Amino acid sequence: MAAAMIIPALVDLADENEEWRVFVGASLLVGMVSVLVAVATRGERPKFTQRLGFLLVTTVWLVAVVVGSLPIYFSEVNVTFAGAFFESMSGLTTTGSTVISGLDALSPGILMWRSLLQWLGGIGIVGMVLLILPSLQAGGLALFHMESSDKSDKVLPRINQLVGGLVTAYVVLTVMCAVTYTALGMSFFDAVNHAMTTVATAGFSTHDASIGYFDDNRILFAAIVFMILGALPFVIYIRAFLPRRFQLWRDPQIVVFLMICLVLSLAMSVTRRVVNDTPFGEALLSSAFNLVSIITTTGYASEDYTLWSNAAIGLFFLATFLGGCAGSTSGGIKANRLVILYLLVRSSFRRLVRPHAVIRLKYGNDDISPQTIQTVTIFFFLFFGALLTGTVLLTMLGLDLVTAFTGSLTALANVGPAFGQIIGPAGNFGSLPDPVLWILSVGMLLGRLELVTVLILLFPSVWLD
Amino acid sequence: MAAAMIIPALVDLADENEEWRVFVGASLLVGMVSVLVAVATRGERPKFTQRLGFLLVTTVWLVAVVVGSLPIYFSEVNVTFAGAFFESMSGLTTTGSTVISGLDALSPGILMWRSLLQWLGGIGIVGMVLLILPSLQAGGLALFHMESSDKSDKVLPRINQLVGGLVTAYVVLTVMCAVTYTALGMSFFDAVNHAMTTVATAGFSTHDASIGYFDDNRILFAAIVFMILGALPFVIYIRAFLPRRFQLWRDPQIVVFLMICLVLSLAMSVTRRVVNDTPFGEALLSSAFNLVSIITTTGYASEDYTLWSNAAIGLFFLATFLGGCAGSTSGGIKANRLVILYLLVRSSFRRLVRPHAVIRLKYGNDDISPQTIQTVTIFFFLFFGALLTGTVLLTMLGLDLVTAFTGSLTALANVGPAFGQIIGPAGNFGSLPDPVLWILSVGMLLGRLELVTVLILLFPSVWLD
Repeated sequence: MAAAMIIPALVDLADENEEWRVFVGASLLVGMVSVLVAVATRGERPKFTQRLGFLLVTTVWLVAVVVGSLPIYFSEVNVTFAGAFFESMSGLTTTGSTVISGLDALSPGILMWRSLLQWLGGIGIVGMVLLILPSLQAGGLALFHMESSDKSDKVLPRINQLVGGLVTAYVVLTVMCAVTYTALGMSFFDAVNHAMTTVATAGFSTHDASIGYFDDNRILFAAIVFMILGALPFVIYIRAFLPRRFQLWRDPQIVVFLMICLVLSLAMSVTRRVVNDTPFGEALLSSAFNLVSIITTTGYASEDYTLWSNAAIGLFFLATFLGGCAGSTSGGIKANRLVILYLLVRSSFRRLVRPHAVIRLKYGNDDISPQTIQTVTIFFFLFFGALLTGTVLLTMLGLDLVTAFTGSLTALANVGPAFGQIIGPAGNFGSLPDPVLWILSVGMLLGRLELVTVLILLFPSVWLD
Repeated sequence: MAAAMIIPALVDLADENEEWRVFVGASLLVGMVSVLVAVATRGERPKFTQRLGFLLVTTVWLVAVVVGSLPIYFSEVNVTFAGAFFESMSGLTTTGSTVISGLDALSPGILMWRSLLQWLGGIGIVGMVLLILPSLQAGGLALFHMESSDKSDKVLPRINQLVGGLVTAYVVLTVMCAVTYTALGMSFFDAVNHAMTTVATAGFSTHDASIGYFDDNRILFAAIVFMILGALPFVIYIRAFLPRRFQLWRDPQIVVFLMICLVLSLAMSVTRRVVNDTPFGEALLSSAFNLVSIITTTGYASEDYTLWSNAAIGLFFLATFLGGCAGSTSGGIKANRLVILYLLVRSSFRRLVRPHAVIRLKYGNDDISPQTIQTVTIFFFLFFGALLTGTVLLTMLGLDLVTAFTGSLTALANVGPAFGQIIGPAGNFGSLPDPVLWILSVGMLLGRLELVTVLILLFPSVWLD
């Protein structure tokens, strides 16, 4: 991250903006502390346990968020530390909620830093879900069936190959998106920033009006395509980089995710035709753009869709829960869990009617293990438990029910906009008091780390030996 | 039910009110149709299957609701059939939402009929959950471990004893409640009506101002006691009636339920002290009354608690999900499920940290079977699935997000009041259009029959042989 800070410093230098000093200063500070910590902790590595794994993942994210907040806190942007921490958390978790207004007047360096945080967060998440969480058995995806002969020291080079494939795919997608945006008339700076936050399904923009600023249907269409590409499981992009012996998972969640996008967009367009008399063709593009933005947990808005109708609010509210595919940069409940929940309900119904039937649960071609079922159901309880707890805490701090509930939801699902007067798609989190921002920051972290990773640290029995 | 209709007819006759004709007419109609159906379906009984069980339970409730709606529809009350059906559903499911305003001016017969519906619904639910659902393995409570020697024809007399014990306990509780209310100054008619709807944790009142009409702290206190008694598992009242060989279940849910009532009431009182400067002692009784009313899914209100503060709205919103104990007249998620969910999460956390530990899940003294875990988790998914589906449908009909979401919630949890301008604790469901009332009626039925019983009928594969 110290190295990454040089990029916005260069951007500000090129713009002849004094703000470059903030980034260089923060970069030096972070770099020096990192070197000191690395030196101080040299020596034998501690034995790796599950517990240490959870602690490390949570700590690494927290430290990254604090580091990310430094340039924001020390910059020209006038926010409290809670605000800077919230902005950095919203960035690295690819949520996209912002406390900053007047984006259009900000120095380019700070805008670039926000986009960079989201872009780094995006690849960080994909890497974590594919490579780290599976070994912790905590909501990750055991994507690769290794043949028995692979359980040797040959695995590591393959994991390096996998990481290489992931990063390459991510960079290629981002470049393609930036080129497309530039071709469609965005400035180079806007195109790069929006490409980074589109592919990361993250949602920060360089303009207060978000993508609505460009007022261009072709850009909306391109954004739909790249948001969807960012919300698909990244493993489909790196097949070419993988050795044959990794067998890839067949993935029914992709169909479900695409169907959800399609059905909700059509339902919204029909509703707007009926309620608002908006012609279907015109309604379709903006409905699809804003819904795909919420379903993929990106969080861009081209206009304030909550003004369309109460039916629109209902559909976008539903969309806020759903999420894209597991193994992508997207958040929320996610399509793979929806598939497994549906299969669970169906098999349980069958068993009720035919108690003696043998029913096997299959996800694609694979049997679903009891471990997977447990992981999915526990996630579901924790998600709704955290949602209600967050809601009560936020109402305790004086927020109304809609702001508290949907604010808590949008944080946990890493979406971005919520509902209501304050933090709706046309609103901003900047007017919320610091304690609210802290709670929402915790919510974003919980949601991003699949809840279990963080909440398990709070259980006393985990610490007893 | 034809026989039950004679009671309000007599009440109206005693009051020299012409409305008695409605009840006698409805009674004769229902009685005649019943006799005809009974005669027409004489003969051999069809083979009992699980599928037939689910169909029968759902059909019986639906028919009872239609029958219950007839006197309301044909009475002086000015409602559509959707309104009468909603009122009857709200009665028999012990929800307590009402479309009728101007209760104080209604004839006593119709008021008595509303209370009777709730009272009959209450005992119907307890009987169903204890006796019918366990054999369908659908969210009921397998309360009794029968010794192997009991699996004979001796079981039936014992089940008769059980039913006798249940009905006796229910009647005794109701009489005690009515006597207490009378002693505290209610008229005999008000006392009997409120006793029926208190013990059934149901919530219909004979006054628009609900229990607030009496403006008497002693009545609030008595109501708290009897609502809690109604929300405890009824099996604790009938121990004396049971033969030794039925071993009763130890029940951790009772402690959890009582702790929830206590903690939320204290939290609310402290909040009112801080936010509204209400003295703690004064705040405690009204906080406890209204919260216990919501937690037990009764739905009385002594005042509009949503005006206290946003924190109050948050706490009452949370309370709407919770519910009392399984095996009582209460609805909602219920304390036994909360206990099991907590145990599931804890054991899953332990297993993540210590993959090789053997962890047994125990509810009280008993192991929790995989069957129970499946029933609880499926209920949870269906509950939140139905909640979100209901919300979207209601916003499609033009309701705002708060009314749609909390209306859907209060129906599914069989609570009564919701939030927002229209159907908050001081509001009324009467102004809602018919399609909304139909959807909410379906929600109440779903919630009352533990969702599975109804939703399973919609799965095509259940009907394939």
